[in-house]
Amino acid sequence: MSAMVLYRGQVCPEWVDYNGHMRDAYYLLVFSLASDALIDRIGLDDAARQSRRRSVYTLEVHLNYLREMKEGDPLRVEGRILASDHKRLQVFFSLHYGEEDAPAACSEQLLIHVDTGSGRSTAFDEDVLSRIGELSPPGAGFESPYVGRSIALKV
Amino acid sequence: MSAMVLYRGQVCPEWVDYNGHMRDAYYLLVFSLASDALIDRIGLDDAARQSRRRSVYTLEVHLNYLREMKEGDPLRVEGRILASDHKRLQVFFSLHYGEEDAPAACSEQLLIHVDTGSGRSTAFDEDVLSRIGELSPPGAGFESPYVGRSIALKV
Repeated sequence: MSAMVLYRGQVCPEWVDYNGHMRDAYYLLVFSLASDALIDRIGLDDAARQSRRRSVYTLEVHLNYLREMKEGDPLRVEGRILASDHKRLQVFFSLHYGEEDAPAACSEQLLIHVDTGSGRSTAFDEDVLSRIGELSPPGAGFESPYVGRSIALKV
Repeated sequence: MSAMVLYRGQVCPEWVDYNGHMRDAYYLLVFSLASDALIDRIGLDDAARQSRRRSVYTLEVHLNYLREMKEGDPLRVEGRILASDHKRLQVFFSLHYGEEDAPAACSEQLLIHVDTGSGRSTAFDEDVLSRIGELSPPGAGFESPYVGRSIALKV
């Protein structure tokens, strides 16, 4: 399974800051909405989250900003599962201007499955694990300069 | 110079998601507002940004989510400069519930000084470099498990 298109929209007026560009936090809002769509696709849509008392929380996020976006610019987010275990997903999203290939921003994220009753992490249910398997890359997977990064001020 | 308190507020109703918690992107909005306050403190407030045609853009962000926050929860952000060169700042922010010491989230960020006329990065002006020096740690600096991280799914 290669990348999935998880979000399409445009830069809202309230997302633009004093520089006239989409504020850094709203790139993450767009990725967050894409993450919701991915969680739906593994079988944990709103109905399943409510009935099973399960959800998926964000543990860790890395973001790289590559291009400025302005009010009204068309947005597309692609996403893919990089890796998973019994209760966690490592995912990668790229934000694009319209249908362009080059990303305007990238985000690697670590997500965890939670029992919302106890507030503790818990194993995915079998049907969800099966969906994750279907959506995961079969081979060596995906490489990007925006996976596995740490921040450093290289002088 | 140790940490500076850069933001105080509370979790707004529109920041809360279907889990009843502050959505991941709004943690970054709070850090982004704290980053604005830090940029003011190095001498690049709104008036200076306009008159000098300078601004500071976010290049890269790392976020760790440590505690859920609910609507109305009191927020405090502390921040510090970890390192800098002639045009970049490596900074660290921690978000706290009220006056608590333990962080609810942490964010390491790489920021770059930009000439808004050309859209290209440019060296900080001397007075700004001087302010950065005053606000920077004199010694070996600050250590945290949330500095220098990369994302990995450790099984």
